[in-house]
Amino acid sequence: MRGQRRGGRPMTTARRDAYTPETLLTVAVQIFNERGYDGTSMEHLSKAAGISKSSIYHHVAGKEELLRRAVSRALDSLFAILEENGARRGRAIERVEYVTRRTVEVLVAELPYVTLLLRVRGNTKTERWALERRREFDQRVADLLKAAAADGDLRADVDIRLATRLLFGMVNSLVEWYRPHPGGGYDADQVAETVVQLAFDGLRTGS
Amino acid sequence: MRGQRRGGRPMTTARRDAYTPETLLTVAVQIFNERGYDGTSMEHLSKAAGISKSSIYHHVAGKEELLRRAVSRALDSLFAILEENGARRGRAIERVEYVTRRTVEVLVAELPYVTLLLRVRGNTKTERWALERRREFDQRVADLLKAAAADGDLRADVDIRLATRLLFGMVNSLVEWYRPHPGGGYDADQVAETVVQLAFDGLRTGS
Repeated sequence: MRGQRRGGRPMTTARRDAYTPETLLTVAVQIFNERGYDGTSMEHLSKAAGISKSSIYHHVAGKEELLRRAVSRALDSLFAILEENGARRGRAIERVEYVTRRTVEVLVAELPYVTLLLRVRGNTKTERWALERRREFDQRVADLLKAAAADGDLRADVDIRLATRLLFGMVNSLVEWYRPHPGGGYDADQVAETVVQLAFDGLRTGS
Repeated sequence: MRGQRRGGRPMTTARRDAYTPETLLTVAVQIFNERGYDGTSMEHLSKAAGISKSSIYHHVAGKEELLRRAVSRALDSLFAILEENGARRGRAIERVEYVTRRTVEVLVAELPYVTLLLRVRGNTKTERWALERRREFDQRVADLLKAAAADGDLRADVDIRLATRLLFGMVNSLVEWYRPHPGGGYDADQVAETVVQLAFDGLRTGS
């Protein structure tokens, strides 16, 4: 939207300047999700963004920096949930329900970023760091579930570690099938509420 | 195991003969899952199997036939569940719990084949056919859930289509994290039971 610039600087400069690290990140995340991080070259990013490789290097050191920024955005949003009041106060069962609901909301709000995070495989330093941080988040939720079990609020006949895996399996599956539908489909609130109902109260009547 | 052959035929023939379509399929599925179907060439298959490309063509017309055989194995196992007594008799809620439990068991028993099926994207005729059959299976389970809801056995405040998606999300997530651990970890029965408990009765005490 900054095509008209004062001072009549050359178009190439104007185009490069129109790209902020933020808009470049949006394009990079889309291409990483389409082609896989390993399968994406700076050439692909340059073509998709419609700017030269040197213009990209003006903003970032390389594709690994773009990956780091993208997964950081997803991780920061997820870890921020754990600092919210709902995650810090009240019985553990209420806190874990709160975190589950908010995780779904963050996943929907930051869909491309969380999708990329969940597809990270661990071939580079940044990927290994992202995997480590994911495990840390999962562990924090598992700890909450354990505390809820210790309070007697979770069924004793269920293995909590296995239940944590399945809960995350259900929540994370959203990146595979959930698509925002303006004017139709499910909104984030409904999905978040259904996940919590299913996981904690089950689908059966009277349960 | 057929290294020693009567008649002293040349070793190359012996090696080719040692490969049945079944053992070739095992190798192909592993490579498809590692590299992606699109990213796998006949050259990759030939190297992984340790036999020449012409030996592979002795057994199959090409890699798409290997894909078709592999996803057919997964699909046949899944559809066979629907013909079992537990899926055909009794209240819909009992039938859908039975199908859920058996789906987890099939998924664990046929892990590489179901993994491949769930990763199919739809670029070839075989992939589109596999996606269509998957949707058919999902629809059959969704119909059972609808029947259970009509019987009044499922909560009325949950959107059944959304619940079906989440249930499959949870079940299908197994291909991402479940690994059989001889002498440790979770066995198929425990995972199947926990999925059913979580989905139908929820994690909360007294539910």
